[in-house]
Amino acid sequence: MPRLCKPSVRVPEYVITAAETLEFAKKVHSGKPQLPLALRLIENTGVQKRHIVQPIEKTLSHPGLTERNRIYEAESKERTPEVIEEALKNAELTARDVDAIIYVSCTGFLMPSLTAWLINHMGFRSDTRQIPIAQLGCAAGGGAINRAHDFCVAHPGSNVLIVSCELCSLCYQPEDDAIGSLLSDGLFGDAVAAAVVRGDGGIGIELERNSSYLIPHTEDWISYAVRDTGFHFQLDRRVPGTMEPLAPVLRDFTAEADWDAGNLDFYLVHAGGPRILNDLAKFLDVDRKVFRHSWATLTEYGNIASAVVLDAAYRLFETDPPMPGATGLIAGFGPGITAEMALGRWAMGGPQ
Amino acid sequence: MPRLCKPSVRVPEYVITAAETLEFAKKVHSGKPQLPLALRLIENTGVQKRHIVQPIEKTLSHPGLTERNRIYEAESKERTPEVIEEALKNAELTARDVDAIIYVSCTGFLMPSLTAWLINHMGFRSDTRQIPIAQLGCAAGGGAINRAHDFCVAHPGSNVLIVSCELCSLCYQPEDDAIGSLLSDGLFGDAVAAAVVRGDGGIGIELERNSSYLIPHTEDWISYAVRDTGFHFQLDRRVPGTMEPLAPVLRDFTAEADWDAGNLDFYLVHAGGPRILNDLAKFLDVDRKVFRHSWATLTEYGNIASAVVLDAAYRLFETDPPMPGATGLIAGFGPGITAEMALGRWAMGGPQ
Repeated sequence: MPRLCKPSVRVPEYVITAAETLEFAKKVHSGKPQLPLALRLIENTGVQKRHIVQPIEKTLSHPGLTERNRIYEAESKERTPEVIEEALKNAELTARDVDAIIYVSCTGFLMPSLTAWLINHMGFRSDTRQIPIAQLGCAAGGGAINRAHDFCVAHPGSNVLIVSCELCSLCYQPEDDAIGSLLSDGLFGDAVAAAVVRGDGGIGIELERNSSYLIPHTEDWISYAVRDTGFHFQLDRRVPGTMEPLAPVLRDFTAEADWDAGNLDFYLVHAGGPRILNDLAKFLDVDRKVFRHSWATLTEYGNIASAVVLDAAYRLFETDPPMPGATGLIAGFGPGITAEMALGRWAMGGPQ
Repeated sequence: MPRLCKPSVRVPEYVITAAETLEFAKKVHSGKPQLPLALRLIENTGVQKRHIVQPIEKTLSHPGLTERNRIYEAESKERTPEVIEEALKNAELTARDVDAIIYVSCTGFLMPSLTAWLINHMGFRSDTRQIPIAQLGCAAGGGAINRAHDFCVAHPGSNVLIVSCELCSLCYQPEDDAIGSLLSDGLFGDAVAAAVVRGDGGIGIELERNSSYLIPHTEDWISYAVRDTGFHFQLDRRVPGTMEPLAPVLRDFTAEADWDAGNLDFYLVHAGGPRILNDLAKFLDVDRKVFRHSWATLTEYGNIASAVVLDAAYRLFETDPPMPGATGLIAGFGPGITAEMALGRWAMGGPQ
């Protein structure tokens, strides 16, 4: 069965602390009636710092979509090769061993996808399949793992490279001042991540099954307005409450494998915000500490969109590797509102 | 083995003829030195008419990206349900039987993808996988068939709905006057298409294998510049010559199945332009008439991007159904420069 190997994650060199975030919000939106609530919500995220690809002053000014997308292209070419090299090393593979690249990113748009440039510049084979996914947002990390799983089952012995490039700071919209926008200004951070799903062998999470779920009639709760100024993130106030309908779905999915969602050995879930993690703990009836890797991502980097589940997985591999056979759940949540779910078992050595 | 069932295709009600195209080009770009060559290239496409989602006067004015994307959303919601209903009927399935939707479109951008709206409004199950692909351009038709094939192999007994929504006229850029832009103004048309890949049963093309190929170092030959005014299509003059390097790749891919690329029973290839089809015939050493369905698409609709291979397939099913066991090649070409290739065999009734 395909295995998710140890991811590689990098965050950019520019840092914005929680205190700076609050200070900038007060300055930019001074006097607005919704500001006090927004500041309280931002404080409640627990995000202590975030990393961004440009200095804060540059981030706060909007140079137009043309320039923003130019920066996205330059930064993604600058920053993804390093995580890819490391992810390949983690999987004990080279670029020539990769049969497909799933590139997920909702914070810039290139056509062709960066996959073409990566293949040309990093020694991947010309017959590497390109699977670029831009429209699953934060759920795309889970989605990428699931599609990589499927690809390895469909093409036995193949290997899939996942690349997540989320430069959320390039979607900052200075004019947007709805509560959801102000909150997201204080929540999202930048990161690039990569991981290999190996068709055979390797050390990591053996992917056993996957599933997807769309909460009915919530398609406008998390969305982009696409405007002359680029992508405008729109967040409905009902989003933090979505774990109540999703928890039973996760339970049922886990039960299909005869596992208990309330009693797994590890959990790698999207850290959309603190309420998401707290509610999920409550509705799955687990200690909130089982999401410690997601909490760490949120606190140290903010919500890094599709890269969250890869970063949480990195932390599991790095600090907390389970025993062989340990059972776990991976879940990305994002627009739709969509959950992309996977079940896996820690594995090393030959097939188990 | 998974089978591609009969597609459904619709083109919009507004028509622009070849004569009108030339007339508008002369008016809009009057006096420019590159105009005579552009007019000659447009005439050479052989496109007799194209269908567009708005009257020509509206199409020629650019209302800004905000409004363009609003129109994309409205038109895609208006036009895709009908082709989806028909594609399901063609496959003798209902929405409840669909396990994944692959939505391909490079001419507008929604997040969440239209998949979420379709699931909510057309009776698909909440656990339908969403696989939106926006960045494979014209190659995405072939890419969608290949990923649907993979999904059905990974999840035996499942069914995948492919939806292609290409409203190319919403990417018309009045200010762009490079030769490649003027040519594409006279080449691309609008269409929506859908088809089901059934995991079991059905009548259609049994998908045997698939592959992908990126011509090295051509990533900037077909591309979008993403600007404040939206997607700007950029076409390099070397693109029409790409069948020379691709033909041997198609030959080798076909030979892996012990088939001969020069001697198949049907061909469903992307009609990028007349040179693509003529050169492919020359380098595969086949009569140009073997691409008759692609020629018909090009002549009647123009280059309808990722929908071409589905429209060519529709014409095969409708006018020219092969004998059981007949062998065929499907190939989409697009940015990268990428070819997405599949081999299949005409099948009806039980497994063969």
